[in-house]
Amino acid sequence: MPAPDSPLTVSPDRLRQARESAARAGIQALLISPGADLRYLTGYHALPLERLTCLVLPVDGEPFLLVPALEEPAARTSPAAALDLEIVSWQETQDPYALAAARLPAGATVGVDNHMWAEKTMAFQAALPGGRQVLAGPVLSELRMRKSPQEVQALRQAGAAIDRVHSRMAEWLRVGRSEREVGADIAEAIVAEGHTRVDFVIVGSGPNSASPHHELSDRVLRPGDPVVVDIGGTTAAGYCSDSTRCYALGEPPAEYRRLYEVLSRAQQAQTAAVRPGITAEELDAVGRDIITEAGYGPDFVHRTGHGIGLQTHEEPYIVAGSSRPLEPGMAFSVEPGIYLAGRYGARIEDILVCTPDGGERLNRTSRELTVIAD
Amino acid sequence: MPAPDSPLTVSPDRLRQARESAARAGIQALLISPGADLRYLTGYHALPLERLTCLVLPVDGEPFLLVPALEEPAARTSPAAALDLEIVSWQETQDPYALAAARLPAGATVGVDNHMWAEKTMAFQAALPGGRQVLAGPVLSELRMRKSPQEVQALRQAGAAIDRVHSRMAEWLRVGRSEREVGADIAEAIVAEGHTRVDFVIVGSGPNSASPHHELSDRVLRPGDPVVVDIGGTTAAGYCSDSTRCYALGEPPAEYRRLYEVLSRAQQAQTAAVRPGITAEELDAVGRDIITEAGYGPDFVHRTGHGIGLQTHEEPYIVAGSSRPLEPGMAFSVEPGIYLAGRYGARIEDILVCTPDGGERLNRTSRELTVIAD
Repeated sequence: MPAPDSPLTVSPDRLRQARESAARAGIQALLISPGADLRYLTGYHALPLERLTCLVLPVDGEPFLLVPALEEPAARTSPAAALDLEIVSWQETQDPYALAAARLPAGATVGVDNHMWAEKTMAFQAALPGGRQVLAGPVLSELRMRKSPQEVQALRQAGAAIDRVHSRMAEWLRVGRSEREVGADIAEAIVAEGHTRVDFVIVGSGPNSASPHHELSDRVLRPGDPVVVDIGGTTAAGYCSDSTRCYALGEPPAEYRRLYEVLSRAQQAQTAAVRPGITAEELDAVGRDIITEAGYGPDFVHRTGHGIGLQTHEEPYIVAGSSRPLEPGMAFSVEPGIYLAGRYGARIEDILVCTPDGGERLNRTSRELTVIAD
Repeated sequence: MPAPDSPLTVSPDRLRQARESAARAGIQALLISPGADLRYLTGYHALPLERLTCLVLPVDGEPFLLVPALEEPAARTSPAAALDLEIVSWQETQDPYALAAARLPAGATVGVDNHMWAEKTMAFQAALPGGRQVLAGPVLSELRMRKSPQEVQALRQAGAAIDRVHSRMAEWLRVGRSEREVGADIAEAIVAEGHTRVDFVIVGSGPNSASPHHELSDRVLRPGDPVVVDIGGTTAAGYCSDSTRCYALGEPPAEYRRLYEVLSRAQQAQTAAVRPGITAEELDAVGRDIITEAGYGPDFVHRTGHGIGLQTHEEPYIVAGSSRPLEPGMAFSVEPGIYLAGRYGARIEDILVCTPDGGERLNRTSRELTVIAD
C-alpha cells in the first residue's frame, strides 16, 4: 500500500487569524474541542472522548491547550507543541472546566466549536456563570474554507486514494453477493489504498440506488442492477475523500441509460462552470436546470454540493439561497443526482478545487456508467 | 473475511423505558441526534452530519423521527421503521428545528443527548424560547449500561474480531519499520477481521510506550523495544472492541520484565475480582493497590476502566469516587498501566462482562508479554 502521509505542519498564522476574527465577531475567547477545528488550528488530532481536551484561545491573553494528564505526552509530541501554546494538563480527579474558567474573564462571551458535545457546552456554561455562548463556526469556516496549496495537495492525495478504490470495483460487484459483503470489501480497500479511517460506504443496488443516503443492506445484487457507490475516508494527514460512481451488472434498463445521460450532461456542465466569482446558488442551478429541463427536477432532492477538507461536509455548501461567490482554494463536491423512488437512481460526484481560472477535478476515474459483465 | 453481521433488532421496550425514565427526571421530551443513543433506541444508524436528524420522544405524545428528505428512504428501511414511530422528513429549504418545536409544548424542559453538537443545541434553544435544556445522558446511560444477552453476544463478536488482529501482530512488528507503517497494516486488518470502522490504533514503541494515548509516529522500531498496541473498531452491529497487548522486539530490559510482572498480577487480580456488587471504586483499587505496593503508584496515571458498548467509552467508569455497584450485563475494560516517562510503559486491557457469578473475558489472546524474534 502507499506509505501513509505524516500530519501536515500548521502555521501559527492560523491562531492569530482566528483570534483576530473572533475579536471582530465580539467573542472574548474561542473554546475548541477535538475535531476538525482543533486540528486546523493546532495540528493536534485528539479523539473526541469524555475527558475534556480544549484549546482556549482568548482574544486578549495567552492561548493554552487543556489536556487530560494521560494525553499530555501525546499533545507534547503533536504539531501543537511547535506553536506558542502552553499545554496545561489535568488529573483524573480535577475539574477541567473550572481550570479553564479561572483563566477567563467573568461573564465572557465564548465561541464554542460547532461540534462541541452538549455535555461539554453545559459544563462550560456551569463553570462560567453569567457568560454567553455563541458558535465559533462562522469565525473558523471563513478560514478553513480557503485551502492553502499544502491543503489542496492533501485533498489531491485523498482524491487519488479513493479513485484507486473505485478503479477496483469490478473485483467486488458480482451478481449473488449482498451489498453488505461488497461494502466490507470496499471498506477494507479504503484503508488499504491510503486512508486511515473509513468514513462511509454506500452501496445502493437496484431500487436502493434511489435512496441518496442509503448505506448497506442485505439485498443481493441481480443481473441488470444499477449500483450507486458513494465512498469516502480520511487520510493520515486528516483530509477527506468523497466520490460517487455508478455501475451496472450487465446492461441496465433503457430508461436508466436516458436518465444517466441527462445526469452526466448536468454534472459535466456544472464542473465546467466552476470559476472564481460564480456564486454557490448559480453553480447549483447549472446542473439543476439541465435536470429540470429533462423533466427530472422533482427527482433531484438535494443540493449539488458541499465543501470538503478536514471534514467531509463543511463550508461552502453549493445550495440554492447561498450568494457566496467561489474563490480560488475552495474545495467542494459537484454531485447532482436523479432518484426515481422504488425503481432506481444515479449520482455522479467529483471533488473540485476552484483555481484562478476554473476548477481542478480531484477525482479522475471515468464518469461513464461502468457496465460490469457477469 | 468473516461475514459482517447485520444490525441488531431493537425492542420497542427501549423507547418506553426511556420515556418513563425521562418523566421521572422531570424531562418533557428527549431530543436524540445521530450516535449511540439514537442507535440504541431505534436501531437507526445515521451519520452525524450538518442536516438535522433527530428522534423526538415526548413524555406525553407520539414520538417521531425527523430526517432530511434525502435520508427518508434510509430511515424507512432501517430497524426504526419496525417501531411505532412516525418518520417526518424535511426538505432542503425547510427549518427542521421549527418543525420539531411546533410539536412540543412551549417552555418545555428537553433532554438532549450528551453528544449533540453545539450548533444543534443552539438551534433548538432558538426554536424553543423559554425552554430549558438538560442532558439526556443520565436517563439513557441507566438503560445502556446493562447489556442484553444479544448485546453481550455482539460484544463477544467484537472481542473475537480484535483478538484476531492481535494474533497476527508478528506479521507487522519488525525492527526498521515505523509505528505509522505498522499502524496502517493494523488498520487494514481491523476491517479485514470483522469491523466496519477503525476507531483507534495506538502503536507506542520504545519511549512512546510510556504515553498512554500515544497514537502513531514516524519513530522506527529498534531491537529490544517494548511496544504497546491498543486497538479497537466497531462491528456492523454497532458494537465496539478495545484490547491492549504488549510486545517486545527481542528481549526487553530486565526492569521492563519486572514492571510487566507487577502489571500482569494487577490485571489478573482485578479480572478475578469482577462480580456483582463490587463497586467501581473497589474494583479500581484491586489493581491499583498491587501496583502501588510495588512502588509504581505514581506511574499509573489513569482510572482502570471504562464501560463499552455502542461507544468505546461509556458508563460505567471504573474509577476512584464511583460507588456504583457492578451488575450482571455491565461490560467494561480492565486496563491497568504503568508508565515510566521517557523510558517505557505497559498496559494490559481486556473487556469483561459482569455475570451472575463473576466476569467473562471477551478478549482471549495471551496476556503475557509477546517477544517477537527478529
